[in-house]
Amino acid sequence: MDLIPELAELSRKTPSKILLVVLDGVGGLPREAGGPTELAAARTPSLDRLAERSALGLFTPVAPGIAPGSGPGHLAIFGYDPLRYRVGRGVLSALGLGIPLGPDDVAVRGNFATFNPDGTVKDRRAGRPPTEENRRVIEKLKSRIREIEGVRIELYTESEHRFVLVLRGEGLGERVTDTDPQATGVPPRPAEPEDPGDEASARTARILNRFAELAREALKDEPVINGVLLRGVSKKPDFPKLPEVAKVRAAAIASYPMYRGVAELVGMEALELSDFEEDPDRPRAKLEALRSAWADYDFFYLHFKKTDSKGEDGDFEGKVERIELFDALLPELLGLDPDVLLITGDHSTPAVFKAHSWHPVPVLLRAPYLRNDAARRFTEDEAARGSLGHLVGPVLLPLMLAHAGKLQKYGA
Amino acid sequence: MDLIPELAELSRKTPSKILLVVLDGVGGLPREAGGPTELAAARTPSLDRLAERSALGLFTPVAPGIAPGSGPGHLAIFGYDPLRYRVGRGVLSALGLGIPLGPDDVAVRGNFATFNPDGTVKDRRAGRPPTEENRRVIEKLKSRIREIEGVRIELYTESEHRFVLVLRGEGLGERVTDTDPQATGVPPRPAEPEDPGDEASARTARILNRFAELAREALKDEPVINGVLLRGVSKKPDFPKLPEVAKVRAAAIASYPMYRGVAELVGMEALELSDFEEDPDRPRAKLEALRSAWADYDFFYLHFKKTDSKGEDGDFEGKVERIELFDALLPELLGLDPDVLLITGDHSTPAVFKAHSWHPVPVLLRAPYLRNDAARRFTEDEAARGSLGHLVGPVLLPLMLAHAGKLQKYGA
Repeated sequence: MDLIPELAELSRKTPSKILLVVLDGVGGLPREAGGPTELAAARTPSLDRLAERSALGLFTPVAPGIAPGSGPGHLAIFGYDPLRYRVGRGVLSALGLGIPLGPDDVAVRGNFATFNPDGTVKDRRAGRPPTEENRRVIEKLKSRIREIEGVRIELYTESEHRFVLVLRGEGLGERVTDTDPQATGVPPRPAEPEDPGDEASARTARILNRFAELAREALKDEPVINGVLLRGVSKKPDFPKLPEVAKVRAAAIASYPMYRGVAELVGMEALELSDFEEDPDRPRAKLEALRSAWADYDFFYLHFKKTDSKGEDGDFEGKVERIELFDALLPELLGLDPDVLLITGDHSTPAVFKAHSWHPVPVLLRAPYLRNDAARRFTEDEAARGSLGHLVGPVLLPLMLAHAGKLQKYGA
Repeated sequence: MDLIPELAELSRKTPSKILLVVLDGVGGLPREAGGPTELAAARTPSLDRLAERSALGLFTPVAPGIAPGSGPGHLAIFGYDPLRYRVGRGVLSALGLGIPLGPDDVAVRGNFATFNPDGTVKDRRAGRPPTEENRRVIEKLKSRIREIEGVRIELYTESEHRFVLVLRGEGLGERVTDTDPQATGVPPRPAEPEDPGDEASARTARILNRFAELAREALKDEPVINGVLLRGVSKKPDFPKLPEVAKVRAAAIASYPMYRGVAELVGMEALELSDFEEDPDRPRAKLEALRSAWADYDFFYLHFKKTDSKGEDGDFEGKVERIELFDALLPELLGLDPDVLLITGDHSTPAVFKAHSWHPVPVLLRAPYLRNDAARRFTEDEAARGSLGHLVGPVLLPLMLAHAGKLQKYGA
């Protein structure tokens, strides 16, 4: 479902302010049947009071059964159907590392791999090397491969076997096949343009094949990491931008590069955060940034990461603690008196699942013009009884805009 | 919503086993306001116990208000949006009769009709003749029309005025218009290729027009059935197959040809059933087949027909009885200990409605990673309070795959 073109038609500029809070991966699961989820186990007096005068519901960002990555989950929250507004793997990885990409640049997701002497793939992930080892090999490659066909080659460590390759130059295309054969015992595939007539992609493919060859040469004496596999060749997509779509000045307040990057893809400005805190989520720095920017924007995306990280770690209590930490910040957010406040997650990350999951995420909407609501707390079970029902797909944006008085009637 | 391409990317092979039970037409309606539906009236101790530790919800296969036929209803359950994955009427009728179709064959749905002496249509259904009469006329036509332009002509009685025509030969097309004018007092239309440049469809149209002409000649002395109307010209569609889409070995356990046929369309193997029972649903034979195949497949579709048949008959008590019969079998299914068990219907067939209806069907999901659930019985009312919410469209497949651990994260 793509509502972006309609929203661009219907939206109008108003002075009302929208605050969108994303508690990353906040949805959870009970540890045992009938037990509380992380949200239900948390002591959240402020959220509880807020829930009583809010509308609640459940939100499935992509589709039932689909566990979204951070990119698709956030795009769905921002109103962009991730099945339609695609971001390549290379670009997503580059965003995650905070690598700036220009419109002509091409980003590629790389795996360090182990090749057999006959040139077939032995291990697609080179035994998942420590990230330090990745860094060492990246330095080696950087010193030997700087440019191919006049295009600048940039290399960045991601983690373990993963790295990012960026090509900077003119006349590059992104419609290029992966070299990763997704199997062992076979040689890597050559990168090829998807359409042989596409000169720019043919050139990119040629450069990538040459890069893989040079990497094999440079790494020929390495015992484990002796080659690369490349995939997700992509350019930064040119999406319609929120300031035009929704007639808002939109600011992103997030500390991790991935979230800043996805927000910038849809036209938000990622605000600078002061760096005085131990906590990697930097909640105080975020609040400070929000307060100083409050007069200058109409739409604020405020991201907290650690609910997801604790879920990924399988740390139920740690996730509960991060929820409680947010609860303690909530009065300060309410103090700004946003016209519309929406709190949700980009997906569930139940501690018992230790990974992103497909379970719907609770949504809380505090705004004018709400219906009565049976839900009493911001938990999965209560949200299932909420007046917003079960929202599927990129529908939170129109809902926020409508409650903020920013959407005109559709049709006469 | 078409998730098939995404599922093909995200799915992975695991040893987990999925059992999908379809109680055909199981959703119902109360006989009087406030009264129980068929499911609520049934005594179902096993289902009740199962519901207490399961997640429930409601399922609308196509869209609210749309009463699906068996084909679309099942395709939606299997993950294929029936608005996109189309099966022609001719092919659906052929599947219903268990007629094998090769990739080159064309199936056509025929109506026996009564024509006026001036060649206009008098009755599009020839007064709905008894099926025996249909059989007699089919035999007459079979003895006179065997081949046209080197293409073999096969004829099969369906019921009353309905028959199936199959063309077997090379170079046939399916993009051919109906001859049924959908009105009386006008002549039938000639079959025509939708695109005049489509040689194969032009040839098929020519053969169908010739067939209709030969049928008029052969039946010119018949008092009632003296002609044919043809529609739904179609070839067996080449859908992506579940074994590739979901990385499962998939088996169908169904006794009626229609369900075996639709399952085969999506790449399931329809298992042979022993034939020792009086009951046309052959529940014991199905259980036996399920048990013997349990080690060899990962995805089982188990179909029971009679809940629908009783609903179509308007036999409320009969439908209740068939539900109770399933309840008695349930412990044996649970004994197989599937990792994921999903029980639903392909549509509702309320006895008071005597036909397929558009009302959502209850879904029960027993699987790892469930949320708490307020629903206590497998009934429409309780399912409406379940934690799965109201699921619309082809989303049960991703949900089953996700709970079985067979789906990777979507995007980074």
